[in-house]
Amino acid sequence: MTNHYTPAPQAYGFDLTIKQLLNRSKLTAQDQQIVYADKKRMTYSELFVRIAKLANVLESLNLQKGDVIAVMDWDTHRFLESYFAIPMSQYVLQTVNIRLSPDKVLYTINHAKPKVLLLNSEFAPMVKDYQFENSSIEHIIWMDDNGMSSDGVFGSNQARVVGEYEALLDNASDQYEFADFDENTIAATFYTSGTTGNPKGVFFSHRQIVLHALTEAASLGVLPQKQGLVLGDVYMPMTPMFHVMAWGFPYTATMLGLKQVYPGRYAPDVMLNLIETEKVSITHCVPTILQMLLKQAEAEGKGFNGLKMIIGGSRLTKGLATTALSAGIEVYTGYGMSETAPLISLTEFRSDDPEMTLEEDVMRRCLTGKPVIMVEAEIWDGNGEALSHDGKQTGELVLRAPWLTQSYFKNADAGAELWEGGYMHTQDIAYMMADGTLGITDRLKDVIKSGGEWISSLEIETILSLHPAVADVAVIGVRDEKWGERPLAALVLKPDCQDVAIEDIKAIAEKAAEKGMIPKYGVPEQYKIVDELPKTSVGKHDKKKMREIYAGQTQI
Amino acid sequence: MTNHYTPAPQAYGFDLTIKQLLNRSKLTAQDQQIVYADKKRMTYSELFVRIAKLANVLESLNLQKGDVIAVMDWDTHRFLESYFAIPMSQYVLQTVNIRLSPDKVLYTINHAKPKVLLLNSEFAPMVKDYQFENSSIEHIIWMDDNGMSSDGVFGSNQARVVGEYEALLDNASDQYEFADFDENTIAATFYTSGTTGNPKGVFFSHRQIVLHALTEAASLGVLPQKQGLVLGDVYMPMTPMFHVMAWGFPYTATMLGLKQVYPGRYAPDVMLNLIETEKVSITHCVPTILQMLLKQAEAEGKGFNGLKMIIGGSRLTKGLATTALSAGIEVYTGYGMSETAPLISLTEFRSDDPEMTLEEDVMRRCLTGKPVIMVEAEIWDGNGEALSHDGKQTGELVLRAPWLTQSYFKNADAGAELWEGGYMHTQDIAYMMADGTLGITDRLKDVIKSGGEWISSLEIETILSLHPAVADVAVIGVRDEKWGERPLAALVLKPDCQDVAIEDIKAIAEKAAEKGMIPKYGVPEQYKIVDELPKTSVGKHDKKKMREIYAGQTQI
Repeated sequence: MTNHYTPAPQAYGFDLTIKQLLNRSKLTAQDQQIVYADKKRMTYSELFVRIAKLANVLESLNLQKGDVIAVMDWDTHRFLESYFAIPMSQYVLQTVNIRLSPDKVLYTINHAKPKVLLLNSEFAPMVKDYQFENSSIEHIIWMDDNGMSSDGVFGSNQARVVGEYEALLDNASDQYEFADFDENTIAATFYTSGTTGNPKGVFFSHRQIVLHALTEAASLGVLPQKQGLVLGDVYMPMTPMFHVMAWGFPYTATMLGLKQVYPGRYAPDVMLNLIETEKVSITHCVPTILQMLLKQAEAEGKGFNGLKMIIGGSRLTKGLATTALSAGIEVYTGYGMSETAPLISLTEFRSDDPEMTLEEDVMRRCLTGKPVIMVEAEIWDGNGEALSHDGKQTGELVLRAPWLTQSYFKNADAGAELWEGGYMHTQDIAYMMADGTLGITDRLKDVIKSGGEWISSLEIETILSLHPAVADVAVIGVRDEKWGERPLAALVLKPDCQDVAIEDIKAIAEKAAEKGMIPKYGVPEQYKIVDELPKTSVGKHDKKKMREIYAGQTQI
Repeated sequence: MTNHYTPAPQAYGFDLTIKQLLNRSKLTAQDQQIVYADKKRMTYSELFVRIAKLANVLESLNLQKGDVIAVMDWDTHRFLESYFAIPMSQYVLQTVNIRLSPDKVLYTINHAKPKVLLLNSEFAPMVKDYQFENSSIEHIIWMDDNGMSSDGVFGSNQARVVGEYEALLDNASDQYEFADFDENTIAATFYTSGTTGNPKGVFFSHRQIVLHALTEAASLGVLPQKQGLVLGDVYMPMTPMFHVMAWGFPYTATMLGLKQVYPGRYAPDVMLNLIETEKVSITHCVPTILQMLLKQAEAEGKGFNGLKMIIGGSRLTKGLATTALSAGIEVYTGYGMSETAPLISLTEFRSDDPEMTLEEDVMRRCLTGKPVIMVEAEIWDGNGEALSHDGKQTGELVLRAPWLTQSYFKNADAGAELWEGGYMHTQDIAYMMADGTLGITDRLKDVIKSGGEWISSLEIETILSLHPAVADVAVIGVRDEKWGERPLAALVLKPDCQDVAIEDIKAIAEKAAEKGMIPKYGVPEQYKIVDELPKTSVGKHDKKKMREIYAGQTQI
């Protein structure tokens, strides 16, 4: 190859680092607003200053490049500042999932070994008995919205407290020259809650975060305005900033210079009020949060006026989608996971969509959407052979994209398994239609293997959920001597249907089997009526716990 | 830094190569259409097959990786196929600017030294006398829509003709495994027409082209639907594919799986007809093409029904914008140049725009817009000091972005100058407002230096264009013993105003000077009435030629 394409000596090579996401906002959005509930209202120009100040505070701690800095906070402007100042200073941001059980929270901290902890006072009880002597944490930055002082909280470890966040910023210089460096530098790490075993750490480079932001803006931007992202939108997260970085949206919103609203701790009344008063127009959440919000709105007699909402984490059901639409929410599905940063697929809306019935429209919003640009997706059978996209054949969804975690942190074996065969294994069972629409039918680990056949627990859940008495349902596989595994249905009944007969519910599954909608061996024999189904920290059905509680099984 | 972030052995690193732009279309757009005027209609699935076939044809020529392959064609589906097959096979695509004079066309071929020439039969006269013996071209692929054979065209060089494009594809295998390789591999080169001297070659890597496509999709996607890019749009270029790769749009449109329409040679009636029959909804062009199209539509009594059109290359004037809007064209401005791949700034529309008068609306569409995401822009004075963004201070616009040419091909001195001080010099004189809106006031080389002061030729042109008798105007600087340079105005008068007095036109400039709109020394003393102003190959005023013709100056 010729060498005539040599860059000029002073040509700027432009690494894709997080600081570059600020370029457009610095030029065009200095006066745009950022709001933290009723506690703070500032402009982007203040954000830029505060990022520089936080970088100076961190610099004063004499850390090494690549050191981990953990943040335990609700969704605040401080967290947004950390998203930028920490990686832009060449440290690694650890967003701590504070919804895990306290011992798991400490596990993730002991595993990632942060040198600094930015700690919201509300989580002090969770870590105050922590054995700091044997811990990596050398410095604690206290963050507080409730007038709580850190005095005396940490006993003999009090000396580790550097100071209170706002006071530290007040005293810091507002000048900081963020260096250029290799875009493949790791920017952030966080832990998957996982279905089994300890949480696993995923990690993302600056390059990956920038490419995810660009793709997210493009993929949502090219949706029609009723559903798509547009300049003028007001963004508020309702998936926490500690969870897959709020789907990367704080980066995308800041890149575009949108008005941003951070709701703090998730309380339905606060969120509903912010949506109304701050004119929030785009958000994302899991179905549980949507349900809470709808209930609150109904109680207050309010509507949503076209709020755009992407649902992920769990399946959006037709019933919930219909309710949300009629409340004025443009609800649709995004698919992804911690390992995928997370955006992989999105419900597609087009300006040339044909007329659809409400039924068809709702159906589309509830499917898993189509892969976004740059994503390569295949459906693999058990031997790693690609299946055809006929909307019928199901297998594991495997992926390539420029922003997938390249392994698990300090867990090379799990990383190797994740990438076996050169594609990232989602462990989700899916089919793909000829137009690219994905349908997730199950989690690989939730598939029930009965008599050599696979039973989709999600399919059976869907059927059982059609019974008018059923409020919530989960189907798990429990060990069976004869069949290997058999499905068990755990049911929450509606308050006014507590006296329904199990046989009545079972009948709907049998009818579905008769009609060929599910296999005959998919009809559960075992049913548990419970008050509530156990959920994971992110609001998903915790099938691991269900197997423990309902079947005494701690392993699949 | 810790090494716990090691990628898994089989993790896919995902270089940003052009083949990845096809991922989404392969999954979601197999049945989408691509149209070449009335000559070809095919689906994306055919496109994918034809890209593989073209790669096999090229492979049979035993080239080396990095070899240049030149294309001389109108805007056709073949050109689109070349955009992918050539760089995806690790060759360098040279898009030959066929609007240059024949000697300049041959200059660019002699300079880039392609091994293969894909030649539309209509350009055969331009190259048939070319001294192939001393040339780099070893193979010619004949492309033809008019039933013209290559027999006997090339005299003793006939043996270099490999065959006719369609026949070669017919006989090629449809299987080709495109390899992964370094994203920094050069993908494409083309030549700027330039204001002085020989054309200069710019070059772009796979990575740069992919990042440009992502950013273009995001930047246009987040505009409101009336003006922005949306799934369901139908794209047709009206800036040629040889010129800055049709602004990168063929890549962006293919990445998104949009219906695409290629108009061949630009003829207003053909383009107007395609817009109507194929329902073209988004395009881009220079003002000259827009004028042609409006004239044609007026003659045929047709409108444009909300066609989105980005104008670049030359300034969009208020008069033209107003006419276009009233004809149903959502016209607005994009700014860029060959060196910038080209997207740098774009008129911003927002969903929360305040009510505007038509005057304000038109004004905004005619300014140079705001820098798009990832772009860093500064206004520098003559000493490389950044000026403030007050909408008043003018200086040279300098840039950083992930897709700027890193030098000029085989011209290291010009490349070094381009990147002096670590920013890319546009040679455009601009101001920036506090909200990031750019206003280009002049080309650095077109600024008139009179008595130690700078005179903006564009400002004077704007004033003179307000005179009702003036159809077109250009102001150039001509040497003057006393002042160094003085402005000369070249004027085209409207057909029914041929008898207007020069003094009458000069009066409007004097009035503007009185009111402080232009400096007193900005009023030209010299006027030339001409039938037509010389234009460059891309339809811009050719001021270099004007200085030669009107002032006998061959150098500034």
